[in-house]
Parts: sequence; C-alpha cells; structure tokens
Amino acid sequence: MTQIKDLKKRFSNIKKIDFINNLLRWDQQVYMPEGANKGRAELIAFMNSLKHKKLVSEKTGRLIKKAEQVSNLNLIETAILREAKRAYSKAIKIPIDLVKKIAKSVTIGHKIWEHAREKNNFSLFQPILQQIIELKKQYAELIDLGSSPYDSLIDDYEPGATSAWIQSLFDELKLQLISILKKILKSNNGPDDAILHRYYPSEKQWQFSIELIEKLNFDFNIGRQDKSVHPFTMPLSETDIRITTRIREYYLPACIFGTIHECGHALYNMGFMEEIHSTNLAEVTSLGIHESQSRLWETIIGKSQEFWNYFYPLLQSYFPKNLQKFPQEKFYRALNKVEPSLIRVEADEITYPLHIIIRFEIEKMIFEDHVQVGELPSIWNEKMNDLLGINPPDDALGILQDVHWSGGAFGYFPSYTLGNLYAAQIFSYAKEQIPNLHDEISQGEFSHLLKYLRDHIHQYGAIYYPHDLIKRINGDALNIKYFITYLKEKYYRIFKI
Amino acid sequence: MTQIKDLKKRFSNIKKIDFINNLLRWDQQVYMPEGANKGRAELIAFMNSLKHKKLVSEKTGRLIKKAEQVSNLNLIETAILREAKRAYSKAIKIPIDLVKKIAKSVTIGHKIWEHAREKNNFSLFQPILQQIIELKKQYAELIDLGSSPYDSLIDDYEPGATSAWIQSLFDELKLQLISILKKILKSNNGPDDAILHRYYPSEKQWQFSIELIEKLNFDFNIGRQDKSVHPFTMPLSETDIRITTRIREYYLPACIFGTIHECGHALYNMGFMEEIHSTNLAEVTSLGIHESQSRLWETIIGKSQEFWNYFYPLLQSYFPKNLQKFPQEKFYRALNKVEPSLIRVEADEITYPLHIIIRFEIEKMIFEDHVQVGELPSIWNEKMNDLLGINPPDDALGILQDVHWSGGAFGYFPSYTLGNLYAAQIFSYAKEQIPNLHDEISQGEFSHLLKYLRDHIHQYGAIYYPHDLIKRINGDALNIKYFITYLKEKYYRIFKI
Repeated sequence: MTQIKDLKKRFSNIKKIDFINNLLRWDQQVYMPEGANKGRAELIAFMNSLKHKKLVSEKTGRLIKKAEQVSNLNLIETAILREAKRAYSKAIKIPIDLVKKIAKSVTIGHKIWEHAREKNNFSLFQPILQQIIELKKQYAELIDLGSSPYDSLIDDYEPGATSAWIQSLFDELKLQLISILKKILKSNNGPDDAILHRYYPSEKQWQFSIELIEKLNFDFNIGRQDKSVHPFTMPLSETDIRITTRIREYYLPACIFGTIHECGHALYNMGFMEEIHSTNLAEVTSLGIHESQSRLWETIIGKSQEFWNYFYPLLQSYFPKNLQKFPQEKFYRALNKVEPSLIRVEADEITYPLHIIIRFEIEKMIFEDHVQVGELPSIWNEKMNDLLGINPPDDALGILQDVHWSGGAFGYFPSYTLGNLYAAQIFSYAKEQIPNLHDEISQGEFSHLLKYLRDHIHQYGAIYYPHDLIKRINGDALNIKYFITYLKEKYYRIFKI
Repeated sequence: MTQIKDLKKRFSNIKKIDFINNLLRWDQQVYMPEGANKGRAELIAFMNSLKHKKLVSEKTGRLIKKAEQVSNLNLIETAILREAKRAYSKAIKIPIDLVKKIAKSVTIGHKIWEHAREKNNFSLFQPILQQIIELKKQYAELIDLGSSPYDSLIDDYEPGATSAWIQSLFDELKLQLISILKKILKSNNGPDDAILHRYYPSEKQWQFSIELIEKLNFDFNIGRQDKSVHPFTMPLSETDIRITTRIREYYLPACIFGTIHECGHALYNMGFMEEIHSTNLAEVTSLGIHESQSRLWETIIGKSQEFWNYFYPLLQSYFPKNLQKFPQEKFYRALNKVEPSLIRVEADEITYPLHIIIRFEIEKMIFEDHVQVGELPSIWNEKMNDLLGINPPDDALGILQDVHWSGGAFGYFPSYTLGNLYAAQIFSYAKEQIPNLHDEISQGEFSHLLKYLRDHIHQYGAIYYPHDLIKRINGDALNIKYFITYLKEKYYRIFKI
C-alpha cells in the first residue's frame, strides 16, 4: 500500500505548509510589531505559492492516480484520497494567473474597504468590489460544481452544500424567526442589559476567561489564549491550537462569549482521532460544523441558566462591585436580550440568522446575475427593513460593515447560520443521551458533553462531510425544527409568551 | 544583469525560509504550549529540508555559474555572489546522509546532555559526544578549508578566521588576563555585590528593561521583547527583530544585562542598509562581530559609571526599598565585582575570556586528535585550575555546563571572546570620533554612538568579512591591546591598583 502512503505524505507536507502559514498569521495578529507588515506579507505569499506549486504539481496528480488504482482502501484511506482529489482537482482548474489576480485584488480590496467604511461611502468601494466579483465569477465558472456559480463558491466552505438546499432551509427559517421575533417585540417583559455595560477591569476579565475555558476542558498543554483585535482560532498542528479573545472594559459579553466561542472551535480542533493526525483529514469538515461547535458552547451552553448557576458566583467574586448584589436571574436575562439591530456581530440569537439570510440572498443574486453592484446598498437597506424592521442610517452601519466581501469570501456567510442549525440538532441529541446534562452543567461539569461531541463530531475531522456526519448520529438530515424548538422554549420563557 | 537578479532572488527565497524557521523557533521558546513540541520539531525539520534542497539544487549551481560570467558587478553584487558561492559550495560538500546523521545525533545528544548534567555524570554523555565529534570530524574533512579540521568548523561562525590566528590572539590575551587577575585578587578593595541579590519584583524589572531599551533606541516599531528561559535575538525579517530576556527576582543583573546584551544584537540586525534588505547580505557578518555589538552595549556601556549616572536614579525610582539610600558608586562597583568562578555565563569581564580560552584549547585538541573524549573532564579541571585557580567539584559545574557541544557547535566558543576584542577596539575608535561621548552617555543620549556603529558596522551586514570591516575603520587589524587597555583603565581604578 505504498501508493496511499506516498499520497498521504504528500498531503501531510502540504498540511505542514498550512500550519506554518497559520503561525505566520497568528503572530501577525497577536504579537508582530507594526512595522513588520510588509516583510510578513512576503513570507505568507512565499508559503502560499509553495503550497500551490506542491498541490498542482504533476507529482501530486501522479500520486492520486496511483492511489486510485488500489482496490481495498479502508474508510480513512478512502477519505484521504477523496480529500486529495478534491483539493487537487479544484486547484488545477484555476490558472495561476487568476490566483494571483484574486490575491492582489483582495489585498487592495481590503484596504479600500477599510477606507470606504471610514469615509462611510459605498461608492468608494464599488469599483474594486465589482472587480472582485468578476474574478470570483471567473473562478466559479472554472470550478463549475453545480447548477449555480454560487454553489461553486459555497463548496469551498461547506462541502456538499448547494445554494438551493440552503435556500430551502433559510426560506422556512426566515418565516419562523420573523414570527418569533414579532411575538418577542410585542412582549413587555424584555430584559434590561445595562448591567453588562458597567466598568469591568480588563485584567479581571482576562483571568475569568482563563478560568472559564479551563473548566470547559480547553487543554492548555496543547493550546493557549491570547488577545487580538478580532477573536479567532488557529491550529498550528494537531497539538497546538491557539485561540484569541478581545476585551471591552464597558461591555462584559465581548470577552466572555468571544472566549467561549473560540474555545468551542478549539475543542473541535483538539479532538481529532490520532489515526488521522498529520493527514489531510485532521481538519474541520466544514465551516458550518466548525461554527456549530463554537455556537453550541457560546450560546446554547454559555447563555443558558444552568451555565450561570455554576459560573455566576465565580463571576461575582471577580466583579463584586458590579455584581455582588445583582441577582443571577436578571443577569441571565440581560445576556439574552433580543432587539433588532444594525450590526450582525452584535446581534442576538433570534436576529443573527436574519442578518445572515440577508447576505445569503444578496450573494445569490450577485452570482446569478440578478443585480448590479451599484444597486447593492438599496437592496441591503430594503432587506434590513423587511426582515428586521430597521433602516440603516448609512453605509458604514449597513452594507460596509462586514470584511468578507472585500476578501472575496462569497459563500462564507451561510455557514454561520448552518452552524446554529447543526448546533441545536446536535445538542438535542446529546441531551437525550446524557440524562443529567442540565444538572452537570449547573455543577460546572462539561466532560460528558465534550465526550459526546468528541465521539460524534470531533474525532472524525474531515472523514465525513456534514450531511453524513449529522445523519450518522440519528438518521436525520439537518432540520431547522431543532433550532426553532430551542429558541421557542428558551425565549418564550424569558419573554413570558 | 538578469543573471545577478535571478541569483539574488534565489537567495532571497532561501532567506525567507530562514526567517520562517526563526519564527517557528522564536515561538517554540516564547509562547508555544508544552505539548506542541513534537509537531513543532516536524515543522522545523520540514523547513530545514526545504532549505537544503533549494540550496544544493542544480538550479542554484547554474545561477551561480551564470552570475560568475558577469564582469562588471558592483560591490554589493560581488558580495551577494561571494556569499551565494560560500553557502552553496559548503552545502554541496556534505552528503544529505551526513546532514541527517548530524541532525539526529544532536537531537539525541541534547537530551542525553540534559540528563547527564542532571545526574552530574560525564560518562553518561561520553558515548554520544564521541559520536557527535566523529560526525563533525567527517564534516570538517569534507568542508576542508584550512590546515586544521578545526578551521573548517570555526569558519561556520567566523568567516576568514583560523585556529592559528585565534590562538596567537588568545595566547597573548591569556597571559595579560592572568596578570591583571592576579593584581586584582591581591587587592583588598574588592566590591561587595550583596545589593544585587536582594528581592527585585519581576514586573518592575520587566518595566525597567523596556524603558531601558527604549532609551538605547531599540525600535519597537520593528521589534519586541518577550521572556524566555535563555535570552536570545531572532530576526524574523529585516523589519522584525525579536529579543528575549529572563528575570531572576533575587539577582537583578540577569534581566538588565540580558536585555542590554540582546538589544545590542538587535540594533545590529535593525541597522542593515536598505539596499541589502531581502538579500543574503542582510546578515550579521560573523558571530564575533555580532557579539561585539551585544558586549559593547552590555559591558563597555552598560557596566560603565556614565551609564549609571543616567540610569541609577531611574532604577532607584523602580526599587526605592532596596536602592533609595544605596550610593550609586557602590552599585557601580557591585556590578563590576571580579571573582574566578565555575560557570562561564556568570563570569565577569576579566575571567570570562579565560573560560572561553579553556574551551577553545580543548576543542583544538579534539579536532587535532590530541585527546580522547574520556580524558576531557580531567583536562577541563586541570585548565580551570591553571587559568582560574579553581577546581570544579563535579561535572555539572565543570565540563557539562555548556549546551554547545551537545548541539555539535564546535568552533562557536571563540566568537564570544573575539566579540569582546572587537568591541573594545571599535569603542576606542568611536570615543575618538565622538568627543563628548562620556557626557552623552551620562545624559542618556546614545544616538551618536548608535550612528557611529551604524555607519561603520551595522549597515554593511555581510558585505565585508570581520577582518575587512575592522580594517576599514582605522587601518588596524584586530588587536588585543584595546581590550587590555580598557580592562586596566577600568578595573585598576575600581580595585585601586
């Protein structure tokens, strides 16, 4: 079986390049001095080009062909070959010239987007966005995976997903969410979250966040937490998973939930079975499943009553001045305030998916040629009004708020909401299997839940694609009912509906 | 001139691999979690092998040949070609098999050395040391640069230096140092350094160290300081120079002088002229010159009276409890205590070079086949007695104290003392050119001295080899008289001789 061994090694080396690139990027965002940016960009470009060369080389093609001739591959070997073919066949479809053009346009695009957002003026961003979209259309055409070019983009983040399937989920989800939201907005029992906006000293927040993820079984022997402008998770090997958080001294949730979110990602990365270490399967299987792990811990667990049964006394001991006399129930309610708002990343559990659906629908229009780039701001504002009932006062608080399009990351947004849907479904299964789960969480005991996630999700890495992964648990495909049930149970109680 | 351009680019890419490897190693020693060691070693090995392949490839050989045919190369291009040839011709002399054998033996050697030192037993280390020496002898034979195999090893650290030349310097230096040391030991005016062993809180030491290097013109826009077990300097690009320090709460000099030492190295790395950025000349020209920059700042400046005229009041404000009533003169004297001692890294300015000379003489014997590995401990102890008048009580405090041999770094030690010699000579020239230098230092003004070093040393990177670099300043070759004069002037005053 030297054929599969050689292929494995090839992709293990390509993976090393990814890990090294991840260190270059982690350091760039965490510790690198300002003036080092240009040199760092060159190092990253060097590694990217090295990876591309290795991936599209004739040798890689030859190794794949040889491995395809082996008849008795086991489950893992079959998946290794599948992933190798997937990466190779995509890479060879895109001429290096287009790769470079896209890389260049998104570098420029990012800078212009920052400028346009600062100047609060979409028209400054429009020409480069137009160019990025054109290039991504060329890219999608060459990848040519589904009936819609948008499918070819989605596939980069969510293998096996199509825009039609996502739309069928989102259409139903949209109706349900709007209906829940309407009930909530009619209720007079909304929480008050002023307590979260008091002064919480940075150093104390940091210490609490460390104690928190220790309790969630984040393994500091193979990971660490640092600070960065935007929180992220970065694997530097299967045994070196870095997360970051950010601290806002007048907004307590930023650090706590940023930390739990990234910890949820990291637990996935820390949990691949040893048999797939160093292979191309030691990867999250999709961004949606990745997000399901972060959101499960952040929202379903982290914003639950049980969670704060355990953590609230601890939090009070960190911030006695603000919290000693503040009741736990009111704190829990503050965390779960629901309010349509302008900014996606600040949205609550009910309205967040609506922000995503807006972006999904717009991206679909773009790549199915149903819209001109110049029309985007007005379509954006229209949809904000339709779905959330609010009118963005300007571009910066509207269409310019997200970084994704400036980086060419079309097809990325849906993963966020797929993550919520997967999370609710997986958690609903877990509850059935762990009878005392609520009590355990109330006692700060998370190991059975983690074991459940390890057994059914984490260990497999990229062996199974999302739809197989979820079906393997209970036979069901992804279904929005779990998420809707979860939301109703939780929020109807909070809002006394 | 596309020939030289292509060659330049080839070595610029090889340099990128070095920078990336430096980041992998920096992170390993500064922030990497414990459990990540194995994965990290694999990433480093991957990059090392990539570098080796690029360096010894036919393409590199071809590019060198083409560049050699160009007749009108300028100074920088000539040096680029020279350094390319130097690296290439060395690399192709060593079969990959030997490269791997050495890499493997030093990895094992390091672990065994740690164990042997812990167990205080040289005989545990002897077999692997024997093996490393055999491999390094094979290496030296293949490199085959001078009349002695030892020369081929020295050349890796000090281009152009030979063991005969170093011996001629060291023989005279040894006599002079022993004579100075005897006078000092007879004096009854030795300093008392108890003040340095009081309790100095870690956080305050850290803050002082940062303020200190800011004042020394360390550029935080293209550099940073962190903590590590052993202090080091690591360039991650020409505009990203990292240094580390260590803090001992009951020994104040560890942090202060570790910081100044590494800052001295970093100022060199930060000062290459822009024309050589991204080329194989954006390098320190030798470890000796590198060390001359660190030691100049650490000892000649950092342990001078003038330096503490400026910094002592600041230091007092950081540690009022220990220092408020402690006179500056006594503090200065404490820093300059002279005492023969067992451990090289803790030695003073007078005895430090004697420690080095012992190691140089032993290495020379090893590679000229004048000694068996089993005899090394007794030879070590004999020389310690001869030169320093002390008898190591055991192997851990004797021959097992240094990491270098376990890593195969034979020929490295002499650079330390060459650095002291170069530093004294360069500083003596600088004093002549900057008339108010002493006053400037007393006022915390270091920019003229830095400019002098930039103009005469730093900017050139590896354009000139050490002997040319020093001769270009004043016509003189390296001469021990500057160092001896410096020591006598300083220490005879302190010890009232």
